[in-house]
Amino acid sequence: MDTKLIVDEVRLTPILISDPPLLNTQGVHQPYTPRLVVEVVTGGGVSGLGETYGDGVYLDTARRLAEALPGCLITDVNALFGLAAQAADTVDTVGADDSGVDASGLRGVRTADKLRLSVVSAFETACLDALGRTLGLPVHALLGGKVRDEVEYSAYLFHKWAGTDDWGAALDPAGIVAQARRFDREYGFRSFKLKGGVFEPEREIAAIRALADAFPGRPLRLDPNGAWSVETSLAVARELGDVLEYLEDPASGTAAMAEIAARTDVPLATNMCVTTFEEIPEAFAAGAVRIVLCDHHYWGGLHRTRELAALCRTYGVGLSMHSNTHLGISLAAMTQVAATLPGLRHACDTHYPWQTEDVVTPRPVFRAGRLAVSDAPGLGVELDRGALAALHRRWLDDDGTFRNRDDTAAIRTTHPTWTPRHW
Amino acid sequence: MDTKLIVDEVRLTPILISDPPLLNTQGVHQPYTPRLVVEVVTGGGVSGLGETYGDGVYLDTARRLAEALPGCLITDVNALFGLAAQAADTVDTVGADDSGVDASGLRGVRTADKLRLSVVSAFETACLDALGRTLGLPVHALLGGKVRDEVEYSAYLFHKWAGTDDWGAALDPAGIVAQARRFDREYGFRSFKLKGGVFEPEREIAAIRALADAFPGRPLRLDPNGAWSVETSLAVARELGDVLEYLEDPASGTAAMAEIAARTDVPLATNMCVTTFEEIPEAFAAGAVRIVLCDHHYWGGLHRTRELAALCRTYGVGLSMHSNTHLGISLAAMTQVAATLPGLRHACDTHYPWQTEDVVTPRPVFRAGRLAVSDAPGLGVELDRGALAALHRRWLDDDGTFRNRDDTAAIRTTHPTWTPRHW
Repeated sequence: MDTKLIVDEVRLTPILISDPPLLNTQGVHQPYTPRLVVEVVTGGGVSGLGETYGDGVYLDTARRLAEALPGCLITDVNALFGLAAQAADTVDTVGADDSGVDASGLRGVRTADKLRLSVVSAFETACLDALGRTLGLPVHALLGGKVRDEVEYSAYLFHKWAGTDDWGAALDPAGIVAQARRFDREYGFRSFKLKGGVFEPEREIAAIRALADAFPGRPLRLDPNGAWSVETSLAVARELGDVLEYLEDPASGTAAMAEIAARTDVPLATNMCVTTFEEIPEAFAAGAVRIVLCDHHYWGGLHRTRELAALCRTYGVGLSMHSNTHLGISLAAMTQVAATLPGLRHACDTHYPWQTEDVVTPRPVFRAGRLAVSDAPGLGVELDRGALAALHRRWLDDDGTFRNRDDTAAIRTTHPTWTPRHW
Repeated sequence: MDTKLIVDEVRLTPILISDPPLLNTQGVHQPYTPRLVVEVVTGGGVSGLGETYGDGVYLDTARRLAEALPGCLITDVNALFGLAAQAADTVDTVGADDSGVDASGLRGVRTADKLRLSVVSAFETACLDALGRTLGLPVHALLGGKVRDEVEYSAYLFHKWAGTDDWGAALDPAGIVAQARRFDREYGFRSFKLKGGVFEPEREIAAIRALADAFPGRPLRLDPNGAWSVETSLAVARELGDVLEYLEDPASGTAAMAEIAARTDVPLATNMCVTTFEEIPEAFAAGAVRIVLCDHHYWGGLHRTRELAALCRTYGVGLSMHSNTHLGISLAAMTQVAATLPGLRHACDTHYPWQTEDVVTPRPVFRAGRLAVSDAPGLGVELDRGALAALHRRWLDDDGTFRNRDDTAAIRTTHPTWTPRHW
């Protein structure tokens, strides 16, 4: 067997990255968010990169998988699922934890299986990066080839507090419009998504109205992460139906989404009620969603993302892409897989512009809201080992405060009695 | 751009291959069946192989696609669909021809789109073979890697006339059992599929009963290609429910299949009511099938076959594999993709043992009903140019009698008034 294709070593580097105080239904982003950088090093000395959630439970699972991987072929990404399941069987901490706030953000019901898939995704990406580098092929070529040369992204608008970042506070419609203007000016994004569920719906409706006035005809999206009732969702849909590209996860659960969908023409999108293959049949049968936001971290990697896209195509469900706090490795992976998906007619979300730190160099540059699809070997990004070491040092130095993302704990440091709100 | 990855030339070689007088609902196999061998030659001089239907309309479409392909990357198989659609727009003969007998066999409603996908499949396979050979990787590694080292196949039993082959006639249960014994002895197949719809159901029930007696506990399948009514299908299911692994396409159309499925516990399989992604939602919603027989020729290649498998997995529908008259190139492609599919719990069909001629060397060898998954570069088969030339010469010399497969015309040369029967 060709040692160039065999995994020699896996390096896991947990890091903490700066994150602005962005508000959502669960609270506020911590000053630092944990991420995990996965390096798969081959017998040929080639290193492939992957990135995923860095919270403790992800890290535990990743460590077990990292122990199991040496000796495996970097081509054998289909086998990662079985390998991860075996590895996870030995980890008590990976048992289902369905309680309370999701450490990793807002991704529907949390299960051991979803957690494992998010870990696998980073290993799959790293294997594909290593394989592409070894062969001199871009990752998209390992997925059947790109069908577009650029991938369009949308601006991701947040209500936020003032922080150490240079964006300032945005707590009303004027603040959101100012944020959008900067995204428009600096990145050229055409589509705007507002993270909602933070203030009463009237204020968020006003923010979308203000965006529609400021950017006539641009695609607008509002995502309250399931914080609204069916009736509130329908009221918002009535108010904003003329300007929304889609309404994302207005209410929680397939039943509520289906009821809303049946009573409004505004397309509903989701990255909460359809987050696993198991959830698809019920949601599609109920007509609960018209657009699924894929996310290679959720779904288990780039191959699985393509399978999800095939499912959506088959059922006439549109496709967009979800994003949580991430760095340039994941952005590159998102861009590579998005380049291969036929029928991707909605701009992809990306959190990336909010991240001032990265472990890749040079930072990707958006032009007219788009990223060029790299044809360089692998993901087309280079690891900045100095940056990685510095962010890992921050993780090592942390006393545990930030090693697990907990937006609710973060907001309670300022507002001790804060609880999630529903309207 | 690396010229090693660029298509320099495409060679199309229509051939006629010997086929025994196997009986089915549409008539009898012609003495010769048309197939098309596709060779994609790269700028590096590497040749990749694909195989598909060779009837005139397939050949016309293939010629247009072959003209469009030089200069493209062999990695860009996702782009073949768009390229084929453009090429087909210029071919009048590819227009929908939904009338009468399907020249290529028994594959549900015939449409221009399905025809195009069957052509694309051969080009995709040839590109993947060329890519694998160029990189030194097996095709399964280009699909994410194998999850098994062997693929199990089933014996494909036919009622047949005596012909120039050495199998003799099989026109009753004893003949079918004798055929099965030889398949068991020479190939080691564990599962047996009987092509039905040839004689009255009672005789085919008796054949399955005789197989059950001769091979207790072995998986048995019966496939009358939709020749039965709902009531007949249910009567057969009642008679054979205790011994059938599944009943394949007992009746035509999703509605009839769904009604049968609702009234029997015998699992229904299909390669007729679900043959395209468009047909999936209705059939799955209606519960019409429990097992889909995938076929990379139908579905547009190996990547699409993996997508179909993902759809089946998601909807809890089982997966098996269909086979029509084919040679070793397609058998290698079937084995490579089958090796990558999780949850493939039914032995795959293969017509291959009926074919005494081939264009690859050496011929694949079944052991205990299984084929080892090749880890050699590409598909792992070598073209026998002498054999290809001889079979092409037969095609050139043919006066048009056999260049389009027409089982009904073939049976009418013996029985001039024959028409398809339904029970």
